[in-house]
Amino acid sequence: MSNFGAHRLRVVNPYEPAFREAHSAVGATQLLARAEQFKSVAEAVADCTLVVGTTAVGNRQILQPLRSLERAGALIRKRLASQRVALLFGSEKWGLSNESLSHCHWLLHIPTREEQRSMNLGQAAAVCLYELARGGWGAPEKNVARNYVVRGAQQPADMATLDRITGTLQEALHRSGYVAPRASATAQAKLRRMLRRFSLGASDAEVFLGMVSKILWRLSEEKKG
Amino acid sequence: MSNFGAHRLRVVNPYEPAFREAHSAVGATQLLARAEQFKSVAEAVADCTLVVGTTAVGNRQILQPLRSLERAGALIRKRLASQRVALLFGSEKWGLSNESLSHCHWLLHIPTREEQRSMNLGQAAAVCLYELARGGWGAPEKNVARNYVVRGAQQPADMATLDRITGTLQEALHRSGYVAPRASATAQAKLRRMLRRFSLGASDAEVFLGMVSKILWRLSEEKKG
Repeated sequence: MSNFGAHRLRVVNPYEPAFREAHSAVGATQLLARAEQFKSVAEAVADCTLVVGTTAVGNRQILQPLRSLERAGALIRKRLASQRVALLFGSEKWGLSNESLSHCHWLLHIPTREEQRSMNLGQAAAVCLYELARGGWGAPEKNVARNYVVRGAQQPADMATLDRITGTLQEALHRSGYVAPRASATAQAKLRRMLRRFSLGASDAEVFLGMVSKILWRLSEEKKG
Repeated sequence: MSNFGAHRLRVVNPYEPAFREAHSAVGATQLLARAEQFKSVAEAVADCTLVVGTTAVGNRQILQPLRSLERAGALIRKRLASQRVALLFGSEKWGLSNESLSHCHWLLHIPTREEQRSMNLGQAAAVCLYELARGGWGAPEKNVARNYVVRGAQQPADMATLDRITGTLQEALHRSGYVAPRASATAQAKLRRMLRRFSLGASDAEVFLGMVSKILWRLSEEKKG
């Protein structure tokens, strides 16, 4: 991370003894010391506007758009010029769970040989960050990004707002009988993925959240009355 | 190495106990078992036509042409089409000695931050081989990626479905009191524009329409009851 200028490490539920005793490489002490811990993926990415998961693909069913690292790098660099992007890595052994993957807008994979897809975690991170740093962090594309903003496009919605929409909509769907009161984690993840595909802009997300909240409020009121 | 299709590992004067007990990553057992040992760099690279050394640059005096990994990758790929190329890595602690470097035609460096040039050996090798495999060795993955993307990407929703969503959502918003029963044409157009910005895929649009319809049905039921 330090080699390629990625300074913010966020860790979700690390195995405490191992994490406490982790030693950084020479020169990266601060980076590790400043690592932030979170209890869930949702909290860890709350202030980001784009979340990209990494996957070795393998035999698992891929439910989200998948891009190779090279293509992904170009897209992420563009975003980084003005926004905060999270790159999500799973454990070396199991990768990311479907629950974790459902927080991602899309996925990237490192083009490895088909016969040897599983990578060492540190090496996978190094390769991804090398590609992202290519040509300097977002530098050349800054103009592009600025043009978009000038033209009046919205900033993307942040994850915290998206999570509130997901939660509120799910509640409304419960109340209206669309899903069972305790929807399975699968149904929840499905809804989360769908809302990410909507690629909501920040102000649209606020408006949409207001709509869904109002509907939920009415559904609750009616029940009481 | 195995991830990116580099199958020939040659080791010069390894520290015997460590090398003998080295364990390969899953799937790369053969690669390590077939590693060849040499007593000198000269012998190790004897059958190659191009030898490229890797260096973190740092304070040492560079006596040979130095290329960044991206440029180096293009040159090496070209050579690899017909010839054998050696990529030379030094120890993690000391890098390559001047003696070892003298066997190289030219040197490459991975573009890292100036403040953090020293890289973990495994990560440096992974980054170099990823770059060398770019667009070349990884040919089959392109198809994989394309298949996945095609399978995952949805056709855009048609306008008829979008209009039904707009109408149903608007009705639900009326019923819940979010908008006045006779919303102005302006408010209606605003909702329509917003839903178009969601850029819904065809199957997402169907699912979303189902959700909104169910909510509207419930809102109407409650009123009657």
